Amino acid sequence: MQRRLTFFIFTMSSINYNLSLIKGIAFDIDGVLSPSTIPMAPDGSLLRMANVKDGFAMRLAAKRGLKIAIISGADCYTIRQRMAPLGITDIYLNASDKLPVLKEWMTVNGLAPEEIAFVGDDIPDIPPMRAIGLPVAPADAATEVKCIARYISPFAGGQGVARDLLEQILKMQNLWLEHEDAFHW
Amino acid sequence: MQRRLTFFIFTMSSINYNLSLIKGIAFDIDGVLSPSTIPMAPDGSLLRMANVKDGFAMRLAAKRGLKIAIISGADCYTIRQRMAPLGITDIYLNASDKLPVLKEWMTVNGLAPEEIAFVGDDIPDIPPMRAIGLPVAPADAATEVKCIARYISPFAGGQGVARDLLEQILKMQNLWLEHEDAFHW
Amino acid sequence: MQRRLTFFIFTMSSINYNLSLIKGIAFDIDGVLSPSTIPMAPDGSLLRMANVKDGFAMRLAAKRGLKIAIISGADCYTIRQRMAPLGITDIYLNASDKLPVLKEWMTVNGLAPEEIAFVGDDIPDIPPMRAIGLPVAPADAATEVKCIARYISPFAGGQGVARDLLEQILKMQNLWLEHEDAFHW
Amino acid sequence: MQRRLTFFIFTMSSINYNLSLIKGIAFDIDGVLSPSTIPMAPDGSLLRMANVKDGFAMRLAAKRGLKIAIISGADCYTIRQRMAPLGITDIYLNASDKLPVLKEWMTVNGLAPEEIAFVGDDIPDIPPMRAIGLPVAPADAATEVKCIARYISPFAGGQGVARDLLEQILKMQNLWLEHEDAFHW
Repeated sequence: MQRRLTFFIFTMSSINYNLSLIKGIAFDIDGVLSPSTIPMAPDGSLLRMANVKDGFAMRLAAKRGLKIAIISGADCYTIRQRMAPLGITDIYLNASDKLPVLKEWMTVNGLAPEEIAFVGDDIPDIPPMRAIGLPVAPADAATEVKCIARYISPFAGGQGVARDLLEQILKMQNLWLEHEDAFHW
Repeated sequence: MQRRLTFFIFTMSSINYNLSLIKGIAFDIDGVLSPSTIPMAPDGSLLRMANVKDGFAMRLAAKRGLKIAIISGADCYTIRQRMAPLGITDIYLNASDKLPVLKEWMTVNGLAPEEIAFVGDDIPDIPPMRAIGLPVAPADAATEVKCIARYISPFAGGQGVARDLLEQILKMQNLWLEHEDAFHW
Repeated sequence: MQRRLTFFIFTMSSINYNLSLIKGIAFDIDGVLSPSTIPMAPDGSLLRMANVKDGFAMRLAAKRGLKIAIISGADCYTIRQRMAPLGITDIYLNASDKLPVLKEWMTVNGLAPEEIAFVGDDIPDIPPMRAIGLPVAPADAATEVKCIARYISPFAGGQGVARDLLEQILKMQNLWLEHEDAFHW
Repeated sequence: MQRRLTFFIFTMSSINYNLSLIKGIAFDIDGVLSPSTIPMAPDGSLLRMANVKDGFAMRLAAKRGLKIAIISGADCYTIRQRMAPLGITDIYLNASDKLPVLKEWMTVNGLAPEEIAFVGDDIPDIPPMRAIGLPVAPADAATEVKCIARYISPFAGGQGVARDLLEQILKMQNLWLEHEDAFHW
């Protein structure tokens, strides 16, 4: 088609890691895909929030063949409905211990630790973040999580941290806007 | 009536475009009329947000004869109920490819490209933004969208970007507060 | 009782008006008591937000004998349920033209223009704001509203502008924390 | 297990109080655990918000044997559902006068004033804050509350003030991440 990408695409990354290695990205929900402060429904359950720019990048990453997982200690079932149209189905909820869940997902998908990025914001995310190559923290993560993160995003949880990471990975792998379908929904 | 506009109205615009040309303005929803980060309903659907100052300007623009369209890749049906009392009915949802939808709207309304402003925040908005005279981006738009925008609003998506644009257009066309009905709802 | 106010209470006001004159305060809803950007319910109606510190001051002001009115162009019926337990019942909705509504409220309550403060954020609030002694604007009000305001609060709409104003009025009238019941709900 | 805490844990506190004394912490809801500005449900009731990092620290504090109470003047029943899975059940609602409620809780649990921290943001919190050893205010508390607080958190209400306080208490008592179960949900 006649549409051309004549604007300049930055291919520099702010992440000190060889992003061409990354084949799988796992996300926590609360404080990562959704902000730390969220409304309570009338039944006391938490109403998670979603960032639409995160959504665009997650859908594109899944289409380009990257493996995406969501691993949460909570029982946030709404995330399945939100993620299904984005093509993301590897969703693990009620994961009281996240490391074994992550390892199983890696085994099933044949992924090595250095091929994985994990984005977490709080203490229960530390064990999986230590087990993989690229641990990532939102700007408002807990102190100890920031201490072990290889990359601290300038975006807070729920405010575009997934977009920030996935966009940099896809750009370094020449998968970002190289195909016409990136311009569709 | 006796009410007089004795306060000073700024007629300078911060937009580097001949705003007197503009006859139609098209808006994306997510990240433009609604913020990028929004709550999820219990069924996993996204609860869009609205800015009341945007609403005032959209209603006034429609009353003054400007054509307003909303073009979204999502299926946000609530926007119809929100927009109907504002007098805005050209709402196109599930537009996986936005450019043909925009072109059809322009044809039906007899609008030329230089008469159109399009406000978009993410990659799927780039094709329509390149096809018209005045592409506009919110302050928190994707990098590539900002690169092709002729005007980047100081307001983020959902925080008054529509108000900012429409107010400047209406002022330059002497349609802003020139009539008594602007002071009513 | 034995509780004493041993902390220092500032009796200076940042408002250039004789606050001891004020007997009635009228508020707009959208952009004043509620923020400019708010969620949409699944039926497209707007879910207004409330500030709990505003609520404390509104309840105390009503108890101290100040007249409080809410005048909105919208049909936000939830505000009645929110305001009833605070002792505020003069709520005028669907006021397409706010000035006659304000004047009727002033007549019924025997209030003179110089005894009234009106807090508004957008163009339809300008006629009532010009008709009374102390027009007040939130920090994020429309430019023209700020131009005619006698006091621009440092707080944005929905973020405590009512608290800011009422606290200053009550302090100048020695009604703020002078009675034990201020420390109860 | 083989997981080791090799990262550095700061054991300095920014709170000018002997935190090893603290055995009980009581929280207000509105403006403390939940932000000051919150959505209204369609019935006019307020939809409180929750901070997930607060939740992690409250659950851990309860597990480590600290006593946690929630004392609110409002009738926010959803808080019970939210708090039950965190192990927090001492929830007092509709407390029009908070001091007697606090004193009863202290008596039942055998807690002395110097063993208690109370986090409050507005005037009705002042009597209980004056009755205990460590009064704490969020960054956006009312002026008079800040005046009597021994510690003003850099976090606003609903934005992590409980996490900030509990994390410092648990660290000074060597209870923060000393046990493996801190890394689970």
